Amino acid sequence: MSSSRRFDILAMGNAIVDVISSETPDFLARRGIPHGCMRLIDADEADSLYGAMGPGREISGGSAANSVVGAAALGARTGFVGRVAADQLGQVFTHDIRAAGVDFTTAPATGGRPTGRCLIVVTPDGERTMNTYLGACQELDSGDLDAAMVADAGILYLEGYLWDPPAPRAAMRSAIAVARAAGTKVAFTLSDVFCVDGHRGDFRELLDAHVDLVFGNENEVKALYQTDDLGVAMARLAAAACTTVITRSEKGAVVIAGGAIHEVPGQTVARVVDTTGAGDLFAGGFMAAMVAGRPLPECAAVGCIAAAEVISHFGARPEADLKALVAARLG
Amino acid sequence: MSSSRRFDILAMGNAIVDVISSETPDFLARRGIPHGCMRLIDADEADSLYGAMGPGREISGGSAANSVVGAAALGARTGFVGRVAADQLGQVFTHDIRAAGVDFTTAPATGGRPTGRCLIVVTPDGERTMNTYLGACQELDSGDLDAAMVADAGILYLEGYLWDPPAPRAAMRSAIAVARAAGTKVAFTLSDVFCVDGHRGDFRELLDAHVDLVFGNENEVKALYQTDDLGVAMARLAAAACTTVITRSEKGAVVIAGGAIHEVPGQTVARVVDTTGAGDLFAGGFMAAMVAGRPLPECAAVGCIAAAEVISHFGARPEADLKALVAARLG
Repeated sequence: MSSSRRFDILAMGNAIVDVISSETPDFLARRGIPHGCMRLIDADEADSLYGAMGPGREISGGSAANSVVGAAALGARTGFVGRVAADQLGQVFTHDIRAAGVDFTTAPATGGRPTGRCLIVVTPDGERTMNTYLGACQELDSGDLDAAMVADAGILYLEGYLWDPPAPRAAMRSAIAVARAAGTKVAFTLSDVFCVDGHRGDFRELLDAHVDLVFGNENEVKALYQTDDLGVAMARLAAAACTTVITRSEKGAVVIAGGAIHEVPGQTVARVVDTTGAGDLFAGGFMAAMVAGRPLPECAAVGCIAAAEVISHFGARPEADLKALVAARLG
Repeated sequence: MSSSRRFDILAMGNAIVDVISSETPDFLARRGIPHGCMRLIDADEADSLYGAMGPGREISGGSAANSVVGAAALGARTGFVGRVAADQLGQVFTHDIRAAGVDFTTAPATGGRPTGRCLIVVTPDGERTMNTYLGACQELDSGDLDAAMVADAGILYLEGYLWDPPAPRAAMRSAIAVARAAGTKVAFTLSDVFCVDGHRGDFRELLDAHVDLVFGNENEVKALYQTDDLGVAMARLAAAACTTVITRSEKGAVVIAGGAIHEVPGQTVARVVDTTGAGDLFAGGFMAAMVAGRPLPECAAVGCIAAAEVISHFGARPEADLKALVAARLG
């Protein structure tokens, strides 16, 4: 990665505003929504579920967007590619990501679906259950991709969630091709078990041939290799050419790279308020540390610090000074 | 107040979504915005200020709306009259107030100004500085007023902020006339020193002849009688026919009624995060306790409990279970 490039990290992902309400576990059970899951919903279900939810707070979200916001807070030069609509929530998303110091210039969609939103139910255990209406996110396509931006990035970071709708998937494939040709590293997050289950073949192919760095939690990597045994999944990942980072919630993370395995402990959190964005901020922190030249175990430690901050409050965007937190703990 | 009426409290006020960001005091100083004030801004200044603000969180607000949400959380049957536009922020406001159990049926404006918003800068001391773009709020008029709803309320609660634009002011005057004829009590909040300075004659007339219960902080009641001496203002208020409640931040509140003065101490707050809504929740708590038949000093104590909750987090809508907090402290 050359620091002479314009972006340390350029992310492609869903451009979403989170709508967060606090509910009892019974709220989910009555609707048959699995606790802790992420699922895609259509406009009608979004209306119906929103109508049932309690008073909300709106905070910009989107997995890869959260990651680059975290990375920017840690000093990385970042950009984001994703599609909002020309509406008020699109203005909110655009304002917030730019205010966080992330370059964001993808043109908003007009006349089509509204800006995507994620209806997030937070239960008293701090666990989030995400119900995502993709809206305009699905309309991102290869025409939105500025190849020069991709070629001018140290890392291209892609969100597995965005692999689901076909047009953005094609745009990500184009971006990967540009990145490979330009010497831009490609990083990818598996995002969710439902993404892995829906695109296992694609994801395995990405890891074997196109991706330099992959993020996933224990369930996602087990799902990738259809095994209940984390050791089996780790052995498969160790055989792949890429660096793998497995997040393990409060237990920290494991980095598998070049035949070595590094275990990094998690950070203590006084009170888990809302787990939304934990994985996103881990990835953002990890990559920001990587472009700053830290060794892999320290990258994972920075990821854990960023994740611990974001789960201590509502919303998936950092509130505290991440640089100061990292300096206090790692120097 | 008869409990056979449909509403314990029917409020008229601004229908606003708050956009809250955390900034250093320098952010305000550079723009010449007085720390802790509330001021009205136009669409251009709203765009320019929003562009300069950091990442935000959107939480429904509006002074009287916050009050009835608090009162509803304490068990009061409440309604709200105010104008949003038919846009996404209007949907957010409508969802949140209904989800809080408040009846809200005012038709949204179409084709005119967007839903009002308050750009709130919170500084590290927890103080909020409010920059309000009224938008569609100004379009509330007497045609939106359902006289039967006013006549079917125990208390009509009016927001001084809404006295500024002419059409809503006329609607409030109509509502007061209906209330007087129907035996509905009229409660009023002075809202802010700028409101008092702009409408001192009207406000004094309201207190002398049309209002049963008035809320104001020390600065507002001093401004009302153009005195620096709180004792002078209190003497004037004691001579008025209405019950007056003066809020005093961490020092609690003073109730002046029927020639008696009741002082009530404030609640201790571990950490003041965002003072937005303190006065609103005080008034909501006070009125909810009043309709439940509590004596005046207890009404003020309930108000202090509700205010203490709302300043312990971002946003002017309660997050904790207010009923449980009151039960734990007052029984």
